Amino acid sequence: MGALHRGHTSLFDIARESAGPDGDVVATIFVNPTQFGPNEDFDAYPRQMKQDLDKCEAHGVDLVFTPEAASMYEGDASISIHEDAVSSSLCGSSRPGHFDGVCTVVAKLFNLTQPDAAVFGEKDFQQLAVIRRMVRDLDFPIKIIPGPTVREEDGLALSSRNAYLTPAEREQAPIIRKALLAAISGIADGGFGTVEEALLFARQTIEMASLAEIDYLEAFHHTSLIPLSGPVEEKAEVRIATAVFFGKTRLIDNIGIS
Amino acid sequence: MGALHRGHTSLFDIARESAGPDGDVVATIFVNPTQFGPNEDFDAYPRQMKQDLDKCEAHGVDLVFTPEAASMYEGDASISIHEDAVSSSLCGSSRPGHFDGVCTVVAKLFNLTQPDAAVFGEKDFQQLAVIRRMVRDLDFPIKIIPGPTVREEDGLALSSRNAYLTPAEREQAPIIRKALLAAISGIADGGFGTVEEALLFARQTIEMASLAEIDYLEAFHHTSLIPLSGPVEEKAEVRIATAVFFGKTRLIDNIGIS
Repeated sequence: MGALHRGHTSLFDIARESAGPDGDVVATIFVNPTQFGPNEDFDAYPRQMKQDLDKCEAHGVDLVFTPEAASMYEGDASISIHEDAVSSSLCGSSRPGHFDGVCTVVAKLFNLTQPDAAVFGEKDFQQLAVIRRMVRDLDFPIKIIPGPTVREEDGLALSSRNAYLTPAEREQAPIIRKALLAAISGIADGGFGTVEEALLFARQTIEMASLAEIDYLEAFHHTSLIPLSGPVEEKAEVRIATAVFFGKTRLIDNIGIS
Repeated sequence: MGALHRGHTSLFDIARESAGPDGDVVATIFVNPTQFGPNEDFDAYPRQMKQDLDKCEAHGVDLVFTPEAASMYEGDASISIHEDAVSSSLCGSSRPGHFDGVCTVVAKLFNLTQPDAAVFGEKDFQQLAVIRRMVRDLDFPIKIIPGPTVREEDGLALSSRNAYLTPAEREQAPIIRKALLAAISGIADGGFGTVEEALLFARQTIEMASLAEIDYLEAFHHTSLIPLSGPVEEKAEVRIATAVFFGKTRLIDNIGIS
């Protein structure tokens, strides 16, 4: 969606490495209207094409695809792709229709660019899981490569939406990472006996930040995204994700055991 | 879906011609469970793989893809493709979910076989229109080639389901073609001033067959499938389609002006 930061350019670097010297790296910059809800920030979403193109070039992107919405969607477009398991929790329940919009546009971009592999960031963990599911269930001949979340020095995950934060909000926002890290560490080392204990600790930690309001905070299986509870047996399969509002700005982050 | 007849083999011939001597023709034989409704004829649908493979070979098919349902659909499959304009009338309203099943399996087959072109019969005219819409809206890099309907000498459109007809039903079934032909001819030459008159005549003609029961009979725009009424200005854009039950057997046919 553009407004590129080091989180995005790290994905270009992974794609460049994966494609090898003879392969081509294609980046798409497209603020897709169909994945925004009616009260979301489509109009306000930052757009900075010139800087974005410079970053693409600096990170070895061979081709940038930057369509207009009018050329991507016919006026009487009537096809949509729906995912009804992985997308129903977490951001899917806060943002109805969002992942249908994501699936549909990503399928279009796959068909338009026909890549051998595609890189998606782990920061949007549910999006990654939904895309993996779509690739599996529609048999797209495309390898999905996850890109690790890139962070500020204080742990805040990079996001184009961080630019919306007031200085006071920005100062509190790293609590998200700290809370998730404490929760997952406690699960990994047995400090928390159950998922509920870990989530309660993380929730209380985030709520100590006066400007933070939790949208969701959940633990789930890393591929099915089915919620987990009770004692954890297969610790490598646990992922914890949260969405937190600071004012009108909604930040997401997640963490697993690896 | 197999049970191949001359209608299907005519599509192989078109594909063979289109692919040229260096191209490969792939046929898929797959009785897809997700496009049958709960009270439809999935179990009874005719299956005759040995004869089908012989026909494929005789018509220049290079490769036949005949997957098992269990290898096509994961137990927790959760992705579906929905079309909500072209598929809502005609067979779509009689068979809820049918075209979602068609779109989803065809998208999978497209991704598995990655053809340059794909041939679909005009007998399933709405299916052809829905597939064209999916290819357009999801940007599949595939040319869709329509195959004309193949008929018995008495005009009955070939269908695997014709085998279900009793001798008495089989004798009456050609009334479908006769009724559509009279209606479209009357529109083409001005004998009918309006679509309603033409449809009424076709309906009365079919109802003269004592064993026939009309499921639907409609006139519509040939690509949008939006119903037409009143006087017709762009006659080349009119298509008339019907579905008629003979006992439990449901036959479909359609006609345009060309």
